Amino acid sequence: MVSTEASLETIDRTALWQSYQDVRRFTEDLCATLIPEDFVVQSMTDVSPTKWHLAHTSWFFETFLLSRLQADYKPINPLYTFLFNSYYNAVGKMHARPRRGLLSRPSVKEVFEYRRHVDEGMDRLIHSAGEETAATIKPVLMLGLNHEQQHQELLLTDIKHVLAQNPLKPVYRPAQNTPETQTQPLQWIHYPGGIVEIGNDGQEFIFDNEGPRHREFLEPFALASRLVSCGEFLEFIEDSGYHRPELWLSDGWSLVQQENWEAPLYWEKVDGEWQVFTLHGMQPVRHSEPVCHVSYYEADAYAAWAGASLPSEAQWETAAAVLEIEGNFVESGLLHPEPPQEADKDYPEQMYGDVWEWTRSGYLPYHGYKPPPGAIGEYNGKFMSGQMVLRGGSCATSGSHIRSTYRNFFRPQNQWQFMGIRLAQDL
Amino acid sequence: MVSTEASLETIDRTALWQSYQDVRRFTEDLCATLIPEDFVVQSMTDVSPTKWHLAHTSWFFETFLLSRLQADYKPINPLYTFLFNSYYNAVGKMHARPRRGLLSRPSVKEVFEYRRHVDEGMDRLIHSAGEETAATIKPVLMLGLNHEQQHQELLLTDIKHVLAQNPLKPVYRPAQNTPETQTQPLQWIHYPGGIVEIGNDGQEFIFDNEGPRHREFLEPFALASRLVSCGEFLEFIEDSGYHRPELWLSDGWSLVQQENWEAPLYWEKVDGEWQVFTLHGMQPVRHSEPVCHVSYYEADAYAAWAGASLPSEAQWETAAAVLEIEGNFVESGLLHPEPPQEADKDYPEQMYGDVWEWTRSGYLPYHGYKPPPGAIGEYNGKFMSGQMVLRGGSCATSGSHIRSTYRNFFRPQNQWQFMGIRLAQDL
Amino acid sequence: MVSTEASLETIDRTALWQSYQDVRRFTEDLCATLIPEDFVVQSMTDVSPTKWHLAHTSWFFETFLLSRLQADYKPINPLYTFLFNSYYNAVGKMHARPRRGLLSRPSVKEVFEYRRHVDEGMDRLIHSAGEETAATIKPVLMLGLNHEQQHQELLLTDIKHVLAQNPLKPVYRPAQNTPETQTQPLQWIHYPGGIVEIGNDGQEFIFDNEGPRHREFLEPFALASRLVSCGEFLEFIEDSGYHRPELWLSDGWSLVQQENWEAPLYWEKVDGEWQVFTLHGMQPVRHSEPVCHVSYYEADAYAAWAGASLPSEAQWETAAAVLEIEGNFVESGLLHPEPPQEADKDYPEQMYGDVWEWTRSGYLPYHGYKPPPGAIGEYNGKFMSGQMVLRGGSCATSGSHIRSTYRNFFRPQNQWQFMGIRLAQDL
Amino acid sequence: MVSTEASLETIDRTALWQSYQDVRRFTEDLCATLIPEDFVVQSMTDVSPTKWHLAHTSWFFETFLLSRLQADYKPINPLYTFLFNSYYNAVGKMHARPRRGLLSRPSVKEVFEYRRHVDEGMDRLIHSAGEETAATIKPVLMLGLNHEQQHQELLLTDIKHVLAQNPLKPVYRPAQNTPETQTQPLQWIHYPGGIVEIGNDGQEFIFDNEGPRHREFLEPFALASRLVSCGEFLEFIEDSGYHRPELWLSDGWSLVQQENWEAPLYWEKVDGEWQVFTLHGMQPVRHSEPVCHVSYYEADAYAAWAGASLPSEAQWETAAAVLEIEGNFVESGLLHPEPPQEADKDYPEQMYGDVWEWTRSGYLPYHGYKPPPGAIGEYNGKFMSGQMVLRGGSCATSGSHIRSTYRNFFRPQNQWQFMGIRLAQDL
Repeated sequence: MVSTEASLETIDRTALWQSYQDVRRFTEDLCATLIPEDFVVQSMTDVSPTKWHLAHTSWFFETFLLSRLQADYKPINPLYTFLFNSYYNAVGKMHARPRRGLLSRPSVKEVFEYRRHVDEGMDRLIHSAGEETAATIKPVLMLGLNHEQQHQELLLTDIKHVLAQNPLKPVYRPAQNTPETQTQPLQWIHYPGGIVEIGNDGQEFIFDNEGPRHREFLEPFALASRLVSCGEFLEFIEDSGYHRPELWLSDGWSLVQQENWEAPLYWEKVDGEWQVFTLHGMQPVRHSEPVCHVSYYEADAYAAWAGASLPSEAQWETAAAVLEIEGNFVESGLLHPEPPQEADKDYPEQMYGDVWEWTRSGYLPYHGYKPPPGAIGEYNGKFMSGQMVLRGGSCATSGSHIRSTYRNFFRPQNQWQFMGIRLAQDL
Repeated sequence: MVSTEASLETIDRTALWQSYQDVRRFTEDLCATLIPEDFVVQSMTDVSPTKWHLAHTSWFFETFLLSRLQADYKPINPLYTFLFNSYYNAVGKMHARPRRGLLSRPSVKEVFEYRRHVDEGMDRLIHSAGEETAATIKPVLMLGLNHEQQHQELLLTDIKHVLAQNPLKPVYRPAQNTPETQTQPLQWIHYPGGIVEIGNDGQEFIFDNEGPRHREFLEPFALASRLVSCGEFLEFIEDSGYHRPELWLSDGWSLVQQENWEAPLYWEKVDGEWQVFTLHGMQPVRHSEPVCHVSYYEADAYAAWAGASLPSEAQWETAAAVLEIEGNFVESGLLHPEPPQEADKDYPEQMYGDVWEWTRSGYLPYHGYKPPPGAIGEYNGKFMSGQMVLRGGSCATSGSHIRSTYRNFFRPQNQWQFMGIRLAQDL
Repeated sequence: MVSTEASLETIDRTALWQSYQDVRRFTEDLCATLIPEDFVVQSMTDVSPTKWHLAHTSWFFETFLLSRLQADYKPINPLYTFLFNSYYNAVGKMHARPRRGLLSRPSVKEVFEYRRHVDEGMDRLIHSAGEETAATIKPVLMLGLNHEQQHQELLLTDIKHVLAQNPLKPVYRPAQNTPETQTQPLQWIHYPGGIVEIGNDGQEFIFDNEGPRHREFLEPFALASRLVSCGEFLEFIEDSGYHRPELWLSDGWSLVQQENWEAPLYWEKVDGEWQVFTLHGMQPVRHSEPVCHVSYYEADAYAAWAGASLPSEAQWETAAAVLEIEGNFVESGLLHPEPPQEADKDYPEQMYGDVWEWTRSGYLPYHGYKPPPGAIGEYNGKFMSGQMVLRGGSCATSGSHIRSTYRNFFRPQNQWQFMGIRLAQDL
Repeated sequence: MVSTEASLETIDRTALWQSYQDVRRFTEDLCATLIPEDFVVQSMTDVSPTKWHLAHTSWFFETFLLSRLQADYKPINPLYTFLFNSYYNAVGKMHARPRRGLLSRPSVKEVFEYRRHVDEGMDRLIHSAGEETAATIKPVLMLGLNHEQQHQELLLTDIKHVLAQNPLKPVYRPAQNTPETQTQPLQWIHYPGGIVEIGNDGQEFIFDNEGPRHREFLEPFALASRLVSCGEFLEFIEDSGYHRPELWLSDGWSLVQQENWEAPLYWEKVDGEWQVFTLHGMQPVRHSEPVCHVSYYEADAYAAWAGASLPSEAQWETAAAVLEIEGNFVESGLLHPEPPQEADKDYPEQMYGDVWEWTRSGYLPYHGYKPPPGAIGEYNGKFMSGQMVLRGGSCATSGSHIRSTYRNFFRPQNQWQFMGIRLAQDL
């Protein structure tokens, strides 16, 4: 999960503690505008209550560091081990996922106390552990911080889903989307293919599923210079895209009919005009902004309609590897995808940030992948079935969290993440 | 629903306003120990969040009185009409019942503001309406207050169900059950039967389903002198009661197997001892207290095991009509059934309060019953299918709310109300 | 179940064997027009394959008579005990009901061989049992024959349901419904009420649920002189009957919306004309024929729309007790309800035959009812919850099978029996 | 789907008609031991009744050839177009898949008449079409024949599933499995990898999903010399394989718990000995035979337990491309996997026949894949989501039907095909 080199060097405890504090504080900053009632609701099984995210990320440090390495650590409540375990069978039994929204207690206040309790434990552990222990701490702590960053993104997408269910359409954080702009013409960036290396062996922190670095062969291909825009997706809608079975994967078509999909999640036609629920409330749909909250099925159907395809993850990574990691991340505070700034003739834009980009690659192990031993091995490997890979991060991802080799994964029917479409072409 | 005589007399506005204030205040008193997070959760479709009960009871006055009779009444939020309608199709569309737990907003504070807003409206309406309007107000207001009393009981049984789902087993209100006592021997009180009159034509407030008063013929029968105790029900359990299909109705037996029922709802075997979740937290099961939170199927199976039956509602009402309305109601603050005090040789004990008593009567209209016209007609009549009648009130019912003619009704599988068993015999 | 008197007299073995042969042969006559493929299908959980009816009725004689009283009886296949047990827990485990349609074997031929095998056993048992054994045989044998008659009716309603699912609309038995006639004007027959006796203590064969005979009090009431006709039901449909929630019980209204009910089961609008699937294939709806295949919810909604109610079973039985048992039974071969012949001013018509009449009475035990001991006790008693009583038999019932005290019962949502509506009024 | 070269050459009508007759006759040969009742049952949604397979394969020729190219062709029943369309939206509406088992009609006899009717039409079309039409016929006819071969395999796996539901455990065709043999020691065959070409551009008939031929890069790998045996799988079972979450993909583990899986489908412990339901009835499990009827989840868990992985489809195809296509196919008549004959040191054994081999590759389009235009385009492309690729054919596949490039695909939970496990290693 983390290169062993990293853990052999002398640990910079001050830097580590600073990173820890930064990530932990940012999680709590995200809750600033919420009232206690907001922390409780679970609007579907995929969604967790805000309170649960706050507690589970603390449970992670408690379970994998404090309980194991801090001899005198006393849990604030032994039942939390059960309540806030997400899916680690090796750690013990857990509270059933669909029941997370049934818990009014512990209160929000108690959950914040739990965070303080764990933070104090971590403070002591980081600053007083022997050098050898400290070396074993770092990789797990880095994993814990990256884990918490993942839950920061989920916290945002989950609370968005919760608020969207409410006919009162509550605002998470007041803001105005930027004004409509001219949509850039879409261009195709060509790549020669050949034997490429993808994946990551981790000089810095990586997730285990990003490795090992290995070779793949790519035939020549092209990537779209920008993401598919809402205006383009509207053309698909108006061309009866949601009513033409020939455009859809069979499973997708079943879902379209069963759920009566007519537009992306959170779109609503109000007085004849398309609006979209955002974290700033209901907003008009800007034609130039990237379409978002579409499932893999919708992305694939759009690509079929457009006479193109979705990129494979190897194609995407090859194109992204040479780019700077910059874009509309959670730090921008916009919490919504933005229209592209200006066209670049040589490189695709918005590869990072704005929306996760569906690839046509199933989430499967790379050649030579082995999950790490123990409970940590459950982190990624056991989900390698039934999901598709997404790349590039979104407007709800931390900029420090993303990489060209980063593999996100969701089920093809999922829509509630900030998910969008980049087209590709097999040449 | 209310005798027309009642509405012709001069209205005592002071008394009316006092009643209104008393009932409304008691609802809020029941929330005194809750934290905001508790008000939000819906633990099953039958259960509503506390917040919803607070708002819906206000919606009732707003919809059926303020919006109709108060010319200048301004709703605090027009969407509340949609959000807090329970099931009145005649009033308009409504928020789907299973989605009540998805609403973090309006906040608890806003819901209390909504109550204040309605209270102010009612204050003005009661005190400034012309005499003719005032006469039409009273029956609807009395219905609204009785409606709110029903929701007080539901608020308690619903929050109990919510807290019971939580592995932390939170306490609603700290208290100790009274100590164990000697169980009274069960005796049989005989009744001659003959043509009896049951039902109520309403000199005072009654619900429409209690009338008309009409004649029924009863063959001779006997009623048990007291409720079935937990100790007796334990004998049923220990005699494999939950594992003998011959004791059960077919639908009940299916449910027993499907849900793996082994004891009443809220019972749990902890270290070999039966405990029960109460509004005071987990408590040992007292053998002498009336068994509670049993479904009709369990009540019927117990009766079959005991060689008896459940009373019909006409039998029950005939026996209850001559008794004082006194018992362990919500005003006692015990919020849990109590063991019987002392045996009476001539009359059955605990007919009122402690637990609602399952009868063997389906909830069906009496001879000559017609639901009232308009939305109010949806109050009771449309539920006359698939439910069984219960009688006598419980430790969560207001003493001022119950009568010998009062017909409560639940589905045979329901357990989450304070429901218990009185045996009968056909002679 | 059977009066003990009946079993004390000397048994007329010839008559018994004749009855046995008559009933058994009639079951097989009903299969004359079916092909082997028809015997296999189970179109919903309530429906059983024809093959299963043929076998289960034989299993009944095998299990309750041959295996118990015939020392040298050898079952043709020991697994049939498991396969063809319907719901008798006391007899042992059984093949799950929803899986009856998964059995292609035993073949139809083997099932008929099974019938022959049981018939031969019964022949020997009836003719060679000692006098004492013979006396114990008769009540069980009579029960078995009445049981088989019930399954004859189910066989017809089940195969009708199976064929109705098929877009080819196969004909069970070719025939023409009689031509349309003038609908008789509906009149009201008045009854004074008072203390009446209903129920049956069984000089002849009765089912246990018909007793004990007991007294009930009836307020004055009126019964409609005839059944509700299709023409009248069409007026209900055209008056938006299926779209007005105020007419419906709450559970019924949920079902109407969920299942998109717009007309009785088997009705279909073909080129603007209402047609109905019958055992003779698709036929135009005759306005004068009794409406059929309506649920309790539809019957109740129609009654509400018509400003009337459904009769209670005591009302129905009181009116029926004085009438001759004659009508359009299965023996007529019409297998479809017929328009009434001529109005009678003094008595209601079509009380027997044509369609089972929904009553407003829940299917519950009479005062003093006790199920018989042993497996036979599961016959009726355990179904006394969640069902409504129907009276009078239908065009699929044997005329020799019906009585004024006969209590049929189905769930309020069921439609697939020949079920119709007679109105009543509380005076 | 078919190389255009193929259709330009002069058509050999005699050969074509011979192929047609051979395939069609073989389908009917497979039904020789069935009774009419067997043809009707649908034991789960994935399964189709035998009758349906017989009709649907005829519908294919009727729809895509006769109705389009034979001017005077008269369908035997226009409703068959609706009843026997499987999933071709472009052709029109269709009978819902889960309702296929509700159809007792058309009878088996009528379905065979339908086959004769289509065969006669095809005879005329093949022999009397003009040269130009004949050229367009051939690729569709070849597709139709390959389609029918696929349904021959499904017919066998579906009837096996139907018979397996029956407690009578009926025998499809009597036979004895061959006696137990010594299990060959498992060896690893090494492959160097590099840039390989896989896929097929079709000089002969291929399915569209096999192309285009394209390059992939493989790191060095090894394949197991033979399939995983029942004996080895038993070790997995006895090592608590079905009870150790760490071995399972998360979705698989959920299924194991929900369905209480303890062994492959069709295994049953009878008197302490493992038996397996085969098309010859219940048989003892031979340790040396390849394990069969395991899902992808079981295959993956077994591989994890064995410290290996499943092959990718490119690995499998690279190894298979050089091998003769020979093995235990449907023509052997064994209808059950066989133990391997003898070990080969240089090539893997049993790559073809016996059991389909789960690969770790998701069923996704190859680089450059485009589905053909029109309804035929629905054949394969729209299923490219949520399924895994299997390779090599089974004991129910025709030997003439399989190729090294053949891509079969099923959902990871499916077990009812003849599916087994070959291990691989990433070197």
